[in-house]
Amino acid sequence: MTTDDIKNSIRNIPDFPMKGIQFKDITTAFKDGKMLHKIAEEMYELYKDKGITKVVGIESRGFIMGAILAEKLGAGFVPIRKKGKLPAETNTVSYEKEYGIDEIEMHKDALIPEDIVLIHDDILATGGTMLAAENLIKQFGIKELYIHFIMELDDLKGRELFENPERVESMIHF
Amino acid sequence: MTTDDIKNSIRNIPDFPMKGIQFKDITTAFKDGKMLHKIAEEMYELYKDKGITKVVGIESRGFIMGAILAEKLGAGFVPIRKKGKLPAETNTVSYEKEYGIDEIEMHKDALIPEDIVLIHDDILATGGTMLAAENLIKQFGIKELYIHFIMELDDLKGRELFENPERVESMIHF
Repeated sequence: MTTDDIKNSIRNIPDFPMKGIQFKDITTAFKDGKMLHKIAEEMYELYKDKGITKVVGIESRGFIMGAILAEKLGAGFVPIRKKGKLPAETNTVSYEKEYGIDEIEMHKDALIPEDIVLIHDDILATGGTMLAAENLIKQFGIKELYIHFIMELDDLKGRELFENPERVESMIHF
Repeated sequence: MTTDDIKNSIRNIPDFPMKGIQFKDITTAFKDGKMLHKIAEEMYELYKDKGITKVVGIESRGFIMGAILAEKLGAGFVPIRKKGKLPAETNTVSYEKEYGIDEIEMHKDALIPEDIVLIHDDILATGGTMLAAENLIKQFGIKELYIHFIMELDDLKGRELFENPERVESMIHF
């Protein structure tokens, strides 16, 4: 099994969530046990020697491979959630989306300065959400930061938003 | 490390999301790599010999250990999501919550009749969401069904809603 097999297992849904968008539906890969395992192994190989102490997953599709990778690495898992969902004290960032302002949060005690953090989401499109997540995590003054996606939509150039594009990895490019 | 250590790592948040609720915040367990691994191992031991082919996780906290367990078992992972979030054709069920009607969905091609399914969520409280999830999954005519929670609030007697309570497992009781 290769990353091409993973790419071929992802379903394209035209006009979701709105007209003109070609949505990349990764549920067709995740429901296949062999494919889920292959994606996990590829991610593990990439990060096993980086000393990652926490994997941060972005709600909610980023929880899936983020949690799997955390457990494989022996790291902790930390969720970034939409405003109002986390029960204890949080740090928050707001960011602009196509139709208004969105806010994401992490618990104030989720990370410590010694942490080496990997942030994971399923797809890099325009990059707005991940940039907000990066800014949120920087508030914790951590040691090192890596960013990972399963998929990247190259034409949208989301990658160019990030200060250290060499720390941004995507497994599959569309 | 024992399940008592896991229990002790869960934080109690009074009056969240509303007055009178003692919210069990499991993020304090998940952010600890050793604890995350221990929870995963306990779940794996429970289900490794059941022939599970798909683990279904309920959005969004149920995605975390649901995905980890799926990968450990070599099974596929399938999300149950709130209405409107899944991009392809879905099966839907509605159910009553305290303040109105909620709807949850799965992709129509997520399960096949040969599947042996474990549904996972982080906590069993009144049981309404899990009962709806069980009804949703029964529409697929699968072979066998198991239900798993990390935590159970015994006083709320959510367990009594289910036809086969011997197939409902919780690691930690409050």
